[in-house]
Formats: sequence, C-alpha cells, structure tokens
Amino acid sequence: MAKIKFTIITLFSETLEPYLNASMMWKAKEAGVAEFNFVNLRDFGLGPHKKVDDTIYGGGDGMLLMCEPVFNAIESIKKDDPDALVYLPTPAGKIWEQSSAQALAKRAEDFSVEQNKPLHIIILCPHYEGYDERILTIVDEKFCLGKYILTGGELPALILVDSVVRLLPGVLGGETSAEIESFSDGDNIEYPQYTKPADFRGLKVPDVLLSGHHANVDKWRAEHSK
Amino acid sequence: MAKIKFTIITLFSETLEPYLNASMMWKAKEAGVAEFNFVNLRDFGLGPHKKVDDTIYGGGDGMLLMCEPVFNAIESIKKDDPDALVYLPTPAGKIWEQSSAQALAKRAEDFSVEQNKPLHIIILCPHYEGYDERILTIVDEKFCLGKYILTGGELPALILVDSVVRLLPGVLGGETSAEIESFSDGDNIEYPQYTKPADFRGLKVPDVLLSGHHANVDKWRAEHSK
Repeated sequence: MAKIKFTIITLFSETLEPYLNASMMWKAKEAGVAEFNFVNLRDFGLGPHKKVDDTIYGGGDGMLLMCEPVFNAIESIKKDDPDALVYLPTPAGKIWEQSSAQALAKRAEDFSVEQNKPLHIIILCPHYEGYDERILTIVDEKFCLGKYILTGGELPALILVDSVVRLLPGVLGGETSAEIESFSDGDNIEYPQYTKPADFRGLKVPDVLLSGHHANVDKWRAEHSK
Repeated sequence: MAKIKFTIITLFSETLEPYLNASMMWKAKEAGVAEFNFVNLRDFGLGPHKKVDDTIYGGGDGMLLMCEPVFNAIESIKKDDPDALVYLPTPAGKIWEQSSAQALAKRAEDFSVEQNKPLHIIILCPHYEGYDERILTIVDEKFCLGKYILTGGELPALILVDSVVRLLPGVLGGETSAEIESFSDGDNIEYPQYTKPADFRGLKVPDVLLSGHHANVDKWRAEHSK
C-alpha cells in the first residue's frame, strides 16, 4: 500500500508529469510507495473561457488566481477524501528544510499504517501574479522553498514531492543514504567524496581514502564535514 | 539578441524540456531573450555501457558522477564558447536568493550588450549519491536552493533558470511586477492581494481596496507587507 499520495492542482501538468515518470519518482511509483495525480485547474474555470484569474483590487500588474475555481477544485478532491491536506507554496510560508521533509515522510509512514490508506497531500500551484488571499482559508500548510520568486508553484511542488518521497523506505538504494547526507542533521554538509580513477589528470584522491583503514577514513570524513 | 543562454548537462533532459517549453520560459525563448540547450551526459559515458558513475572510495552507499565524462562534456561546450560559466547545484554552495537571481540577470544584460553575445551558463546536474570532489576544479559557481536534499540537480537547475529569466526585460507582463514582489528587497513579503468577487461565500475583500482611494490603498498595503 502506498504511503503517500499527491494530487497537484496546476494549469501546467504537462510540465510536471515527465519528472514524476523518471528516475527515483518513477521507482517510488512502481514500488507502490507513492502515487501522483494531477487536477487541471482550467477544468474548474468560470464561463465559456474557463477563466481562472482576474485583475487585482486596488490596482497592480498581473492577474490573481480567483477563489471559486480553486475552492471548487479542492472541494472536488476532498469530497472523495476529506482527510486530504492542502499545501500551498508561497513566499509567506514556512521555509522548507530537510527536517520538514523528514517530518512529512514520517507522518506519511504513521498515517498509512494507522489509517490503512495513503496520506493524501493536495498541492495547489499558484501561477501568474499570485492568488486571492481568501484562498488561504482552505489551505492547511503554507511552505516556501527559498527566498526567491518563480513564475509559478510547479517547481516548488516537485521539490516538496521529491524531497519527501526519496525518504520513504524502499526508494533509495542504500539503507543509510538518507541518514549521512547533507542537512540530515541541520546545517551539516557531507564530506567530499571521490570515485575512480585515483589519479585524474594529476588530480589525486586523498591517500587515506585509498588506505582501506576504516577508522582513519571515518576520522578524515568527520574532519572534512562542515 | 538573446541575453542569456543555458546549457544543462543532465541524464534526464526529457524531464526538463517540457517546463522550458511552457508559460514564461516559452515566452522568453519566443521573445529571443533566453536560449535553452541540453547536453546528455550519457553521450560522454565511458566504455560500451557509457558509464558515468562509480562507487565511492573509502566506502559508502550509492554512486558518484565520475570526473572524465563530466570534464569531457564541459570541455566540449567550452571549446565553442570559452566564456561559458559552469554552475553546480550542491549543498556546499551559496544559498540562492532573489538577490542572486537579480545579480545574474543584471550580469546577463551587461555582458550581452558589451560582448554582443548571450551570457552562457552551463548547469551541471549531479545525480545518484553525488559527484567526485575533483569536479569542483572546473566549476565557477556552486549554488544551493535550500537546506533540503533532492534526487538530482534537475529541479535546482530549473529554479535557477526560472528565477533569472523572468527578471529579464520583456518576459514579465507588467513593468513593475518584478520590483514590488516578495524578496525583491531582502526579506519583505508582498501584501495580501484580492480579485473578484468582492464577496465570496461571505469572505470579503477589505473595503479600502474597493475604495479607489490610492493613498489609502498604498497605506494599507505598506501596513500589510512583512
């Protein structure tokens, strides 16, 4: 049984699907660990032109996502699964960190065991200038990927999905891969790593890493983590 | 003439191309402001299996990108354009912020005018466990999107591209869109915004925004920015 299920509300699902059909995300889906769905916000647009956005009260450039299409899209999903949580990428959200990904992965683990169904996360991707503030009344979590502005919420949605799904058991190859890596314990940066050849155009791998002396390797790595 | 040109070195170009062919990135390309290219790292793989990664000296889970395919891929690009800069997303990099995007957009503007060609940014997308540390010897800039770990450098590459390209003149609709938004001046968060209808299921737009009184609107917005 899947641990987590994502439903992404977007106007641009064609830009997201290929990422979720490749590499680790594909593997997670194949392994039955994660499910990915899309809802086209345009299907909930208003009038003959399926309008989803309008101009800003009080003036300003650009267009905002309107309440009604967004509320209707979310309600249509929650009608089938009232436990689904709504996540919104926004500059006003809590900064997303490795600990946030770890907490959501853990929550998905626990929820799926207790409830015998996947934890269901709806991600609403804003686009254009932004969204009508009243949309926040049906949002459970606001998150922010970093202090920069993007053209839409599609990349933040993928980053949230990727950072969580790879932590679920059965997705990464190595058992400890997720434990020793950078940010796994806050601000730590993983030690430098090297692969073959030992000498590449005169650039050499530190001798200690070739020594086979585990204690010395561990010591060197501890000294070279930040 | 384009202001900026990106060449993304990746094993998964099919996951990136749709994003760059939609919405604002498509518009930037059509307007001749930005160019996007891909280099398949597999084309520079070693031996009959086109190997690009190998195990870690000193032990550890996963595989690292090897020097030789990466050096050869970058050198094949720089042979035609020695001015190209190499960017690498890595936890060890400088945290990417709106000011970083602004600086790179400005640099692209200035460079393209002075040199009469686009500023050329090569983005190397690591995958698997990481990369051989010696790869840093041919990297100009290390950047980090945030304190979280992803399965590869593909999403960070798209975020860098999106955050910079949307700032180039002619991409966003409104002249001031990029100036008043969140993080444009550091930690500021843009004021709440509303669109029609004024009353949605009893949720009301603040009266002042409907008043048409510009000074009061500005005052309200200033008070509601963070």
